[in-house]
Amino acid sequence: MAGEPSRGLADVVAASTALSDIDGRAGLLFYRGYDINDLAGQASFEEIAYLLQRGTAPDRGELDGYRAELAAGRTLGALAAADLPAIARQQRPMAALRSLVSLGSAGDPDAESNEPAANLRKAARLTAQQPVLIAAYHAARQGKGLAEADPGLSIAANFLLQLTGDKPADRAAEIFDTCLVLHADHTMNASTFAARVCAATLADMHSAIVAALGTLSGPLHGGANEQVMLGLERIRQSGGDPLEAVSSQVRRRLAHGEKIMGFGHRVYKTEDPRATHLRRMSAELAAASGDDTFYLMSRRMEEVVLEEKGLYPNVDFFAATVYHYLGIPTDLFTPVFSASRMAGWTAHVIEQHADNRLIRPDSEYIGERGQRWVPMDAR
Amino acid sequence: MAGEPSRGLADVVAASTALSDIDGRAGLLFYRGYDINDLAGQASFEEIAYLLQRGTAPDRGELDGYRAELAAGRTLGALAAADLPAIARQQRPMAALRSLVSLGSAGDPDAESNEPAANLRKAARLTAQQPVLIAAYHAARQGKGLAEADPGLSIAANFLLQLTGDKPADRAAEIFDTCLVLHADHTMNASTFAARVCAATLADMHSAIVAALGTLSGPLHGGANEQVMLGLERIRQSGGDPLEAVSSQVRRRLAHGEKIMGFGHRVYKTEDPRATHLRRMSAELAAASGDDTFYLMSRRMEEVVLEEKGLYPNVDFFAATVYHYLGIPTDLFTPVFSASRMAGWTAHVIEQHADNRLIRPDSEYIGERGQRWVPMDAR
Repeated sequence: MAGEPSRGLADVVAASTALSDIDGRAGLLFYRGYDINDLAGQASFEEIAYLLQRGTAPDRGELDGYRAELAAGRTLGALAAADLPAIARQQRPMAALRSLVSLGSAGDPDAESNEPAANLRKAARLTAQQPVLIAAYHAARQGKGLAEADPGLSIAANFLLQLTGDKPADRAAEIFDTCLVLHADHTMNASTFAARVCAATLADMHSAIVAALGTLSGPLHGGANEQVMLGLERIRQSGGDPLEAVSSQVRRRLAHGEKIMGFGHRVYKTEDPRATHLRRMSAELAAASGDDTFYLMSRRMEEVVLEEKGLYPNVDFFAATVYHYLGIPTDLFTPVFSASRMAGWTAHVIEQHADNRLIRPDSEYIGERGQRWVPMDAR
Repeated sequence: MAGEPSRGLADVVAASTALSDIDGRAGLLFYRGYDINDLAGQASFEEIAYLLQRGTAPDRGELDGYRAELAAGRTLGALAAADLPAIARQQRPMAALRSLVSLGSAGDPDAESNEPAANLRKAARLTAQQPVLIAAYHAARQGKGLAEADPGLSIAANFLLQLTGDKPADRAAEIFDTCLVLHADHTMNASTFAARVCAATLADMHSAIVAALGTLSGPLHGGANEQVMLGLERIRQSGGDPLEAVSSQVRRRLAHGEKIMGFGHRVYKTEDPRATHLRRMSAELAAASGDDTFYLMSRRMEEVVLEEKGLYPNVDFFAATVYHYLGIPTDLFTPVFSASRMAGWTAHVIEQHADNRLIRPDSEYIGERGQRWVPMDAR
């Protein structure tokens, strides 16, 4: 395989995994062999995190034990907690999470161990803490205290409670839970791959997760859902009929060769199955909200992009309006993605450490050759 | 290229670069076409950082300007500076640097821009700050203040000054400067690759560097130099003749199939050229120190491993004793590696952003198929 460079490693098999699988032609996604279409709306995020990290669907007792572990692991480390107010004032959300998770290793008794049992405990703690970090960051930047979690609620419901201060409606919590399930893992996406490259030097889980968080922050990856919402908001604010404005602006941008965020995917050749579920939930929340403009704008954008470019919406496109209708601030959309993907990232670190080989590719040299160094005095 | 998994991406060309090139058969390393054997002892680390980040060897005026930029960029951001004492008490060196660089984006006016000019400024600041962070961390964990930098000194000399509190001998500063030159870049090593995977989502430079720092921390990568020194110290402390102890212990460990840290490299099929220079400097420092035991132990270990396994020492092996003789604490060896590699990492981020494509490989699915989700109540 040597010699020929593969830009972006497209179609290069970089790892073996038992965690997730994509059938890009059929538009199917599987977690450990379970079709995402079966899981969405049926499985809870806690069950999916358990499935990914521990290998099997939990029975009642296993799930109760895991839930207790998550609840106990939710408390932030002292170093991260102490720095939160200053970080919330001085760093944007994804940079703040990168810092907070890095600081968080100080409070984790297993931080430096890659032993399987230690990795399982850390995976549960990191999964439990990520939504709390996001809500705590949001509270701190508003100068507020963080609402108390309710031990009887799910991760999804507690996140909405701690973010907004109000216990969410049951259906909102269910929908958000399904969002977390849909985003939990997705084969060798860039952030997961970064986590595995890091873990493959036998670096610890926190290092790998911090690498993943930085990687997710880019606008070509996790940053896309925020960009989708900002785009919709800009068009709506520009005045006139919002649906007409969508049509004309998208056609104009496509004519100029610009990329429309939220469309197309390297792996799917048809609709991303996650988009199907998110579209349906966006429609439901829009109807319930009494203001379906953003949903209708999304539908129009989808039609125009499909007609003009033959591209389908990806996971980021309808996630944007779903999160919007759930009352999540736009600049926390990518952090919310990270709260879900934490289940997958940690499972990939566990898998990498369990059967490790250093990930060290080659590169093709394209620069100058045969240079002679001339000392400064003779230069 | 699809279908066949490549464990660890060995021999897969993952990127094109004009920064460095390795001839693994001849044992040669080039930075932008300059042979490392020409650069070692002739070029300063500042010149090499400039060469890597900006593309050409600087003339006198360019170097003076770059040095001024480095000096101005040395000051730590307020958030990192404020948190340093607590971090120094609660995190080990590489975790601390990961946190401090992550926090450092708050103090960088260009933090969120990937524009070429912004990336050049950030590359200079990150290169200037990394040795200061290490010395400041070491001072803080001892409850001491950080020694003032001397504006007339090189990065290498200032690091030794700020680490130890004493202005280093000229020759010690020269040798350390050469160490920084030798470690500055090395094609698609794991930490550099992690930085490029991160940057390829158009994440910002701080995110990419934090990913690289976490990746370097692993014992299969940057952590190896510390492991080499700890191994030598353990053997020496075990009593008896240290050279005999080296021979018998290494033979015993090899007979048990154990890996000896500091030997072998995926790319070099002969001696790593950096090891040649580091061996010579280790010998010189050992002779000057009046205690050449660790150097002689290293030589013996090298002989035994070559005889038994045909493996050559890599960059980490003689770096360990060089750093030891320079008075650098063993747990700061990997951080010192990061201070040097910062020049290359930042240059790779600049290069990735300048001609970007998302790095998103495939994976091979090896898990269960055809699972049916049974709701909890029916499980």
